[in-house]
Amino acid sequence: MSEEDGDGVDHGPTSSHCGDHTGGETDDRDGTRDLEQVVAAVRDRVDPDEDERTRLRDVADRLMERAETAAAELCADTDVLQVGSTARNTWISGDRDIDIFVRFPPSLDRETLADYGLEVGHATIPDGHEEYAEHPYVKGTVEGFEIDVVPCFRLESASEIRSAVDRTPFHTRYLQQRLDDELAADVRLTKQFLKGIGAYGSDLRTRGFSGYLTELLVVEYGGFRPLLAAVADWQPPVELDPEEHGRETFDDPLVVIDPTDPDRNVAAVCASDNVARFQHYARSFLERPRIDVFEPDDPEPLTEVDLRDHLERRGTTPVAVRFEAPDLVEDQLYPQLQKSLDGITTGLDGRGFDVFRATAVADETAAVLVELAVSERPAVERHEGPPVHVRNHAEGFYDAYADDPDAYGPFIQGGRYVTERDRAFTTAREFLESDRLFDVGLGAHVETALEDGYEVLSGDDIVTLLDEFGSELADYFAPRP
Amino acid sequence: MSEEDGDGVDHGPTSSHCGDHTGGETDDRDGTRDLEQVVAAVRDRVDPDEDERTRLRDVADRLMERAETAAAELCADTDVLQVGSTARNTWISGDRDIDIFVRFPPSLDRETLADYGLEVGHATIPDGHEEYAEHPYVKGTVEGFEIDVVPCFRLESASEIRSAVDRTPFHTRYLQQRLDDELAADVRLTKQFLKGIGAYGSDLRTRGFSGYLTELLVVEYGGFRPLLAAVADWQPPVELDPEEHGRETFDDPLVVIDPTDPDRNVAAVCASDNVARFQHYARSFLERPRIDVFEPDDPEPLTEVDLRDHLERRGTTPVAVRFEAPDLVEDQLYPQLQKSLDGITTGLDGRGFDVFRATAVADETAAVLVELAVSERPAVERHEGPPVHVRNHAEGFYDAYADDPDAYGPFIQGGRYVTERDRAFTTAREFLESDRLFDVGLGAHVETALEDGYEVLSGDDIVTLLDEFGSELADYFAPRP
Repeated sequence: MSEEDGDGVDHGPTSSHCGDHTGGETDDRDGTRDLEQVVAAVRDRVDPDEDERTRLRDVADRLMERAETAAAELCADTDVLQVGSTARNTWISGDRDIDIFVRFPPSLDRETLADYGLEVGHATIPDGHEEYAEHPYVKGTVEGFEIDVVPCFRLESASEIRSAVDRTPFHTRYLQQRLDDELAADVRLTKQFLKGIGAYGSDLRTRGFSGYLTELLVVEYGGFRPLLAAVADWQPPVELDPEEHGRETFDDPLVVIDPTDPDRNVAAVCASDNVARFQHYARSFLERPRIDVFEPDDPEPLTEVDLRDHLERRGTTPVAVRFEAPDLVEDQLYPQLQKSLDGITTGLDGRGFDVFRATAVADETAAVLVELAVSERPAVERHEGPPVHVRNHAEGFYDAYADDPDAYGPFIQGGRYVTERDRAFTTAREFLESDRLFDVGLGAHVETALEDGYEVLSGDDIVTLLDEFGSELADYFAPRP
Repeated sequence: MSEEDGDGVDHGPTSSHCGDHTGGETDDRDGTRDLEQVVAAVRDRVDPDEDERTRLRDVADRLMERAETAAAELCADTDVLQVGSTARNTWISGDRDIDIFVRFPPSLDRETLADYGLEVGHATIPDGHEEYAEHPYVKGTVEGFEIDVVPCFRLESASEIRSAVDRTPFHTRYLQQRLDDELAADVRLTKQFLKGIGAYGSDLRTRGFSGYLTELLVVEYGGFRPLLAAVADWQPPVELDPEEHGRETFDDPLVVIDPTDPDRNVAAVCASDNVARFQHYARSFLERPRIDVFEPDDPEPLTEVDLRDHLERRGTTPVAVRFEAPDLVEDQLYPQLQKSLDGITTGLDGRGFDVFRATAVADETAAVLVELAVSERPAVERHEGPPVHVRNHAEGFYDAYADDPDAYGPFIQGGRYVTERDRAFTTAREFLESDRLFDVGLGAHVETALEDGYEVLSGDDIVTLLDEFGSELADYFAPRP
């Protein structure tokens, strides 16, 4: 999606509501016809065709049979079921994930469950390899599909679960009972919409809408269009409880009580900015339906010339701390980067450098990039002491500075002693290169990475970030909702 | 008083409490002997000698006789009395003010009172001229003394007064009944102490301790030394009510209910910084008695070299607005300068230039001098819109900026729309030279003066202030309590 897209401004060829209203079949004012046309075009792309469905069904059935056979050999009272979007008919054409859950009786101990699970997995996918989430499981590729074979306990209700995977079958059953073909198609549309605006996914980099949350919302509001209409008018905190069984309060902008677990907010990870983003694009799309909202932004990397132009036009002072990216999965890395970003900007703000905007990026290296509104502070800083009438403290403060040849004062202002003394740092670079950087809140692995060495970039050095982060910088300098 | 004086640090020849304690008559540890020696030395200078008293008495008696004669001719039932410090034996040697009040019966109307007052004044001081306070009165010089002849009403109590001068005779009577020679001497000492630390005078430039307030405090606490001991431990707000007749509450750091008027705080004009100053020097003097505390600071004008040194050492960004000083008496001028200073610093702070310290000075020209901690702002500024969920406002904000090619965004942060758009001013000079300067709160006459033209000084231009304000700048760059 280009910069202009999705901002409600571009009146390109897909939109004609400012056009001629003298006749024709298209009711431009209402936009209904437009929306249906757009939806039809998107469905063309996201709905799997018969051939894709058949191929997926074939592979899934074959593997489930294998898994059932292997499981039955190990333990009576097991069953196998397919979960996830491909089980619920809500996958987007081209997605190739097949999730097979093998359910064992709850009398099994966890170790045996894990052993049995791996055995069934290897029997199901002979070329598979082991991965580790909450339990170990087997993953592999079969005829182009990505297969997970995951063991779990078969429980009476989701409130008895022992680990997060035990919950999944309940989710699938709940939704399978409620999603007819039409609603499933609307789930696919909504997922693609959320992908297009960058708000899809409950990973800790995105902190957006999970697939399960999206499906619940579509069911709750009865489809794509009524969902958008509702979202456009949401007044966070928004609280939904489809089964009316919630017992706790949550401090989140969006609360959707899990229909299978009254104590869980399905939207707990969804950030307020993603809720706001969904609101923005829901309004914008209903007002002016267009296909590009469904297309994720994929900007051209920023050029050196453009980066220099932006910095000159903005007149801000850029600084960056760049270091070897810690070797972590994204769900561990991004919270640590966010924490480090918060710590570094707080440290800079507290020293008067007035952070204008900032971001953290990661690939082979990682960098915290900060634009400052203040490039330099004076050599002195004001230091307020206690009110003069608080005698003990006041005398201690006065005595500490009265003899200092480098301090101005102490003098009296607002009834307090005040002194002007040398500042520790007059530039952000001095601070970032000092040990004080390690006093701000940093993620643990980021702190370790910085201890191994880091580079402070400022001014023109910033262009060296383009070798790795051209697209991220393009996003940064073309911010959109 | 030099910069080092009065800061509790300088151990010059007048102080010996760090000296040899092996013997001798001086008890250095206790400091008592030191304090008595210092007091004796100051009294030598501030107590009028017999000759000065006699000469003043002679002139005062002669003029009062003349006034009595003239008054009796105009109106029965008048009397004449001397008021002020020379009437109360509390004047400091060298002060040459004789205040003669002519009291007329309250049955007179104000116009007749004024006419009679002037007639008596001219009869008393044939070379005098008329001045105008609340009434017109006659002022003149006789044998080197400054004489005021002021008419007022003779009333039963101070709560019946028709103008401020009617109150003065009550003050004089109250204090004459309570000030013996010893307390009068302590009043002179206390006045000189307050002059030395720059806190004497209820004019609106100083906003310090008036003569009457000083006398009340000395009487209330029983002398100079017990007053200092009490002040050292004051916990503002300090509330004194010698006659225990106060009926109102006052929001001042020091409240002394007028013994002659239960509804008046004698210390209403005294600024909290002067209360704190008195506390500081009371402690410092009691700990280390020394004569220089009694000597007003009179710094050498700052040299250009020293000014440049200070600015380089501090690394701040100085700017000044200089204009023709409005033709006002000090009690009108300084509140207006203070208001203008507050307005200009608020205007600069609000635009991100972060005022470090500032002052206003006046002579032929006047100037508001501001040291900034931030010399320049970026070309863009952050502009926060409403929360996205407040639909009407949010849509209005979004639509206003979505089309603006010069604005970055709108994007979403913290659930709100945010845009980055061009700032009005990137330097303080641009702001000070613009019409926006007139939007800040300025004193009315200062505003008129600025409308007639003003100069903005910045960087090296600041040295041109030295032609007129060398001493003020010396004070500014050597701030003391």
